[in-house]
Amino acid sequence: MATLETITQSLAALSISPAATVSHEPVSSPAAWREALEASSGAPKPFELIKTLVYKPKTAKTATPIPVVVVAREGTEVNSGAVGKKLNLKELRFASDDLLQEFFSLDKNSLSPFALNKDTFPKVVTVIDSSIESASVPFAIRGLSTSQTLFVSGKDLHTYINKLTTDASPLQVVDFNALKTEAAAAPAAPAPARKEKEDAKIEGAVQIAIGIKKEVDFAGWYTNVLIKADMLDYYNVSGCYILKPWSYSIWENWFNKEIRELGVQNSYFPMFVSQKVLEREKDHIEGFSPEVAWVTRAGQSDLEEPIAIRPTSETAMYPYYAKWIKSHRDLPLKLNQWNSVVRWEFKNPQPFLRTREFLWQEGHTAHLTKAEADTEVSQILDLYRRVYEELLAVPVVPGVKSEKEKFAGGLYTTTVEGFIPTSGRGIQAATSHCLGQNFSRPEMFNIVVEDPNDPTGQGKIYVWQNSWGLSTRTIGVMVMTHGDNQGLVLPPRVASVQAVIVPCGITAKTSDADRKRINDKCDELATTLKKAGVRAKADLRDAYTPGFKFNDWEQKGVPLRLEIGPADLTKQQTIGVRRDNGAKAPIPLADLASAVPALLETIQNDMFKRAQDTYFERLKTVTEWKDVVPTLDNKCVVVMPWCEEEACEDDIKERSGKSAEPQDERAPSAGAKSLCIPFDQSRWPAIEPGKTKCTACGKDAKRWTLFGRSY
Amino acid sequence: MATLETITQSLAALSISPAATVSHEPVSSPAAWREALEASSGAPKPFELIKTLVYKPKTAKTATPIPVVVVAREGTEVNSGAVGKKLNLKELRFASDDLLQEFFSLDKNSLSPFALNKDTFPKVVTVIDSSIESASVPFAIRGLSTSQTLFVSGKDLHTYINKLTTDASPLQVVDFNALKTEAAAAPAAPAPARKEKEDAKIEGAVQIAIGIKKEVDFAGWYTNVLIKADMLDYYNVSGCYILKPWSYSIWENWFNKEIRELGVQNSYFPMFVSQKVLEREKDHIEGFSPEVAWVTRAGQSDLEEPIAIRPTSETAMYPYYAKWIKSHRDLPLKLNQWNSVVRWEFKNPQPFLRTREFLWQEGHTAHLTKAEADTEVSQILDLYRRVYEELLAVPVVPGVKSEKEKFAGGLYTTTVEGFIPTSGRGIQAATSHCLGQNFSRPEMFNIVVEDPNDPTGQGKIYVWQNSWGLSTRTIGVMVMTHGDNQGLVLPPRVASVQAVIVPCGITAKTSDADRKRINDKCDELATTLKKAGVRAKADLRDAYTPGFKFNDWEQKGVPLRLEIGPADLTKQQTIGVRRDNGAKAPIPLADLASAVPALLETIQNDMFKRAQDTYFERLKTVTEWKDVVPTLDNKCVVVMPWCEEEACEDDIKERSGKSAEPQDERAPSAGAKSLCIPFDQSRWPAIEPGKTKCTACGKDAKRWTLFGRSY
Repeated sequence: MATLETITQSLAALSISPAATVSHEPVSSPAAWREALEASSGAPKPFELIKTLVYKPKTAKTATPIPVVVVAREGTEVNSGAVGKKLNLKELRFASDDLLQEFFSLDKNSLSPFALNKDTFPKVVTVIDSSIESASVPFAIRGLSTSQTLFVSGKDLHTYINKLTTDASPLQVVDFNALKTEAAAAPAAPAPARKEKEDAKIEGAVQIAIGIKKEVDFAGWYTNVLIKADMLDYYNVSGCYILKPWSYSIWENWFNKEIRELGVQNSYFPMFVSQKVLEREKDHIEGFSPEVAWVTRAGQSDLEEPIAIRPTSETAMYPYYAKWIKSHRDLPLKLNQWNSVVRWEFKNPQPFLRTREFLWQEGHTAHLTKAEADTEVSQILDLYRRVYEELLAVPVVPGVKSEKEKFAGGLYTTTVEGFIPTSGRGIQAATSHCLGQNFSRPEMFNIVVEDPNDPTGQGKIYVWQNSWGLSTRTIGVMVMTHGDNQGLVLPPRVASVQAVIVPCGITAKTSDADRKRINDKCDELATTLKKAGVRAKADLRDAYTPGFKFNDWEQKGVPLRLEIGPADLTKQQTIGVRRDNGAKAPIPLADLASAVPALLETIQNDMFKRAQDTYFERLKTVTEWKDVVPTLDNKCVVVMPWCEEEACEDDIKERSGKSAEPQDERAPSAGAKSLCIPFDQSRWPAIEPGKTKCTACGKDAKRWTLFGRSY
Repeated sequence: MATLETITQSLAALSISPAATVSHEPVSSPAAWREALEASSGAPKPFELIKTLVYKPKTAKTATPIPVVVVAREGTEVNSGAVGKKLNLKELRFASDDLLQEFFSLDKNSLSPFALNKDTFPKVVTVIDSSIESASVPFAIRGLSTSQTLFVSGKDLHTYINKLTTDASPLQVVDFNALKTEAAAAPAAPAPARKEKEDAKIEGAVQIAIGIKKEVDFAGWYTNVLIKADMLDYYNVSGCYILKPWSYSIWENWFNKEIRELGVQNSYFPMFVSQKVLEREKDHIEGFSPEVAWVTRAGQSDLEEPIAIRPTSETAMYPYYAKWIKSHRDLPLKLNQWNSVVRWEFKNPQPFLRTREFLWQEGHTAHLTKAEADTEVSQILDLYRRVYEELLAVPVVPGVKSEKEKFAGGLYTTTVEGFIPTSGRGIQAATSHCLGQNFSRPEMFNIVVEDPNDPTGQGKIYVWQNSWGLSTRTIGVMVMTHGDNQGLVLPPRVASVQAVIVPCGITAKTSDADRKRINDKCDELATTLKKAGVRAKADLRDAYTPGFKFNDWEQKGVPLRLEIGPADLTKQQTIGVRRDNGAKAPIPLADLASAVPALLETIQNDMFKRAQDTYFERLKTVTEWKDVVPTLDNKCVVVMPWCEEEACEDDIKERSGKSAEPQDERAPSAGAKSLCIPFDQSRWPAIEPGKTKCTACGKDAKRWTLFGRSY
């Protein structure tokens, strides 16, 4: 395998010296790559990325496949069908990671034209974008790793590849723009069943389609959906992202009302925590310290002591709880804040799921008795369950975390545990912790009151504390659960636009009067729907075709599209198209105010039901160790009788990590860990004490427990 | 004057060595002092502060006054009347700053028992808290400056002072607790008019009264009100404060609805800004760089490049605006975020007014034309005016800032300018900036679209941008405007509790049935009021007397108190007591649902009217320079015809800074600056071009302009 050094040597042999060679943090997507380069001082500006796409044509099972390597500019649209046709090869599909390893000993994020050399070039068919050679902008080319990039001119890149050609292995130089025009001129492929002829104008819309299949490249699909649905943008500080209104509107204050009913009040504590306070609880700080961001300078002055940005606020808040809680009459104290916290992750960031700054709410409460604290832990967890299930239509399993997985410094942690079917991984969706008296103890924050029930008046009670948090991770889980290859799919209850009304059938021949009549009707329907409590919008942009608009709103996940054309007007109806399943049916205009809210409810329920069915199908009861890893490899979650011992959990992680399955490079954990011990044990056969054994270690089992690979 | 060195020498002569000597940032209130010491690693914990109070007794005008110096523990209540009685001196009043300078050459924040020495001791009467000598906790004593503190034992402190005594100048050792009891045993002073006999039980409530008079020590009053009204607490990172629910509830999302109607959408950008991006606009960064907090470390790793915490988000957001705005169809782009920003002020912090982290909303919009941008600047400014005037009942003057005072890097700044009568200072209440094309220019962020109205299709338009912000400063201005010596006074529209219902007349003799009847009635009234849209609360806490509750809710500023006792029940009425003016009147229970909302509206309007009258009375038209400084010294704002030249503004600041008036140590600006050029010029005689002259420099005046000392 080539290294940066061998590449440089090969280039030198051709008298090519790169304009720059830049090291950066490992990147696993084009967006992150571009971001890393833009943030780097060494990269020439502007530049373009070179993409290296590898396809496998349909090949007889007995034959060795000959991969097709396409080297193209970042902005060049590569249509695999058209390339296949041009090369006379059938059914080009993206090559699997295995195939890439076999041919280049590289994964797709390290691959670049420099993987082509005298050994590899004869084994593949190489296609180069014809516009590369004459391009004036320097190209960024991966140095065969995810963290190194070379910059060379198009001419030099072309020269490098061209030198590898032989008569038997020529280089295919392709004008992809011309190819597109040819493809468009050819008879169109039959439209997918749910697209009707009326949508034929969508042609131009391929430019805004997701472009990456969810089931093929989940991580790539995910970031693409987020960007194309206008939810998020990458930001020039690594690991940080911009939440655009389309996602922020989902986040805004969705359960203030519910927690207020529990007596919780909102407040705001500063983002800064002094070192001393942060490090007060040992277990707690051990859990967070590797990720703490430190402010050490203000203006030109070094601070006397570095100040931390909160990774969570327990230690920042509790000195004040100690001060404010003077008597049992000050209990319960229930505060919440909507804020951002910073955990400087060094792992690969992923929008919403793992980001260096994220938004959340954190509730912190203090109680006189454990019973009260316990009750609240459950109440809050149930609110979290409802946020997921009732608002986001995402099923979760409520349960308790194992000792190993509980909150650092707490007594016990309850969780609602989600599941991402596409990756087969569990995801901690939200947690409600009972901290016990660990933070109130005299040697900690000393939060103490006189015991009101002690007749001697001498008794003291260290308060019982809870903390609980729900973050913007919710949005990521929702996107991953419902999104499809057309883009985002929003559950109606959280969509900021629930129904979009699109005027159709307006052509160059349509009279101004008719055009106005249709547009006015759209406006009128929007008004009718708004009055009926539906968040409706009429899309009257005149520069776009209906097809473009359909795609645009499909990408953005709007639950219901209402189409109105001249014929519909005559029939006094609108055509309703569901985003979740593509179903299309006319709705009489007279019924709109009742039919649309009902249909939105149906969509909401159907989305939840489908997601729940999928989750439950993938919860696999396993009672023999030999079935554990195959079950995980099959993208399922293992439910097994478990001894609940930490050593056993470590062992499970170790043993289940040795899977043959190639790992999603974004996923942090290859070994399985316990996800939760479900509260509802009745779904599985009763554990017989002393008789039912732990699937992993054979000791006596205590409870059925979910184990899975996870985020 | 003694210095730290001379103090140490004097102590050494007595074989006293301080337990510690700590340097800290200059502090100007006991709370800030305590905070600075708690944050310091050198201070022994726990400790108590020593307070040094100087009183001037009533003295014949021709006589030299003999000040009374009281040295007491932080928690000791010093009643000046009782002290005077004890010493047989009349009408003890806090000594003026002049008197302190005359006797000790120190201001009150540097003063300490160490100012007593062989020279000063004979000239004053010294009183020491008897509990100091035997106290076991170390005492913090100012080292005769605001930034140095010595820690000595009570015994040593007593020894130090006692050594100064002579027969002619004895030391008065006073047991302040006993003094209090004596005072209480004496016949009570007549109650203030608005307190009736029924409130006589309030006695115990003196412990929670504000304790500092607004007109005597405004800065001390302000922090006391905030803490006692439960709005805020000090935090152990200097310059940062905790917003408790009572203040945060005022802040929460109050004009989301209004800006949404203007087409603004909420979003969230990361708190971090890369150095390169932050420094892109030169004027802009010059305005902010001395205050930027830098993250340089994460966990144990130093970052390659320091990353800033946003002081404001223009430069963080606009690279993305350049990316998102591709066409005139993407305009206007109107985003807002509710976030916190950090400006590491080195001046004295003041809660809400000047804090290192503060909450605000920042709106950032881009427009095709200057006209659209101008319109929005005004629309937003008017929203800000309404937040102040209609919600907070705080009058403001809308206008434009001078060139010197405008936003760094912007085109022009509009402002709503507030006024704090007690200090006589102006305060910038909120600003709406037109940035022009300064940030969109090609060499800046290059935010450009094709001109849709250019027939050649070649024309480009650099977008017109605005930014606008409203911060939690709003809350500080409201507190300072309406608060009184009973505590906070909340305008009904922003009070989270608008009416509190307090059961009265329940004594030990009251039967359980009657007690229940009254409490039930209170609950019933709360329910009735809630149904009528009033945020009502019944205070049924049984451990507190009505008097305590009255004070508690008065301190917290609840606009209306409703009292219900057995006699009221019989008459089917409740006694309503207004917080703003103390007015008391019965309200028939049958009318409650209509009378209370109407009364709250009246209170809201009266509060605004009073504040507006005060503001307008203090806007003084001045056309001769000789009147400027006396007007400012008289706690007024100068309105004068002005030339609008920067050199003249510099000159005004310089000349008006030389006032004889002692300055409030918290206020940053002694010289006057231009506050705003009011939009409504019609309130003053028309400026005659070429004829009306600038009050300051005599050149031709352009417009009437507000000049004042300010926050």
